[in-house]
Amino acid sequence: MEMPVIPQPTFYMFKCEQSAPPGMPKPSCVTEDNRDLYNYLAQKMMEKGLMGPVQAIRTSCLGRCQMGPVLLVEPGHTMYCKLSKEKIDKIVEEHIIGGSPVQEFIIPEQFWGEPINLTK
Amino acid sequence: MEMPVIPQPTFYMFKCEQSAPPGMPKPSCVTEDNRDLYNYLAQKMMEKGLMGPVQAIRTSCLGRCQMGPVLLVEPGHTMYCKLSKEKIDKIVEEHIIGGSPVQEFIIPEQFWGEPINLTK
Repeated sequence: MEMPVIPQPTFYMFKCEQSAPPGMPKPSCVTEDNRDLYNYLAQKMMEKGLMGPVQAIRTSCLGRCQMGPVLLVEPGHTMYCKLSKEKIDKIVEEHIIGGSPVQEFIIPEQFWGEPINLTK
Repeated sequence: MEMPVIPQPTFYMFKCEQSAPPGMPKPSCVTEDNRDLYNYLAQKMMEKGLMGPVQAIRTSCLGRCQMGPVLLVEPGHTMYCKLSKEKIDKIVEEHIIGGSPVQEFIIPEQFWGEPINLTK
């Protein structure tokens, strides 16, 4: 019997889960006020029946601390910033289900300029 | 004075850092034998002067446990499997610096089929 092919994830949603103690100069993607955002995202995936094709992944620092909480959607290299539950709802509806990234939540170009070309 | 633009990462290298206790049926991307792979990758980035444009990120389970240890490179949605130090060296040279993904280390299509189209 031939094994069924496992589809690649349609989207990864990388949620930065780095936190720093209160009072540290570097802002934190996880604070007392927003520590439930990952669970909210995972629950939203379940409600919408998206678990499997969409994977919500916890990560170490994604390097845009000053714009946190941040969420990176791949493929697409789309970095969302200053995340909230309301933004998660809209990102799931419009980007994940609808196929159109939510332009107004994307990190400003000031913090997300053209990538450096490393190819020699 | 105008603030300089911060370039987006040229590549993220997402290293699955999920581990399970020995003897569990589900294989683990981090075991006693391979727990230094993330540090090896980070050190390689430093040696090559790639820190900044390339970000090595620790993640929760990337869902391809049977093919671990796994490493996902974005942009490109390239999933490398059965990772080793020798493979890391070649991935950095050929994919990150050279611009050509290392085809022979990429997860077989059996485990990485076409993504499901979620758009309604």
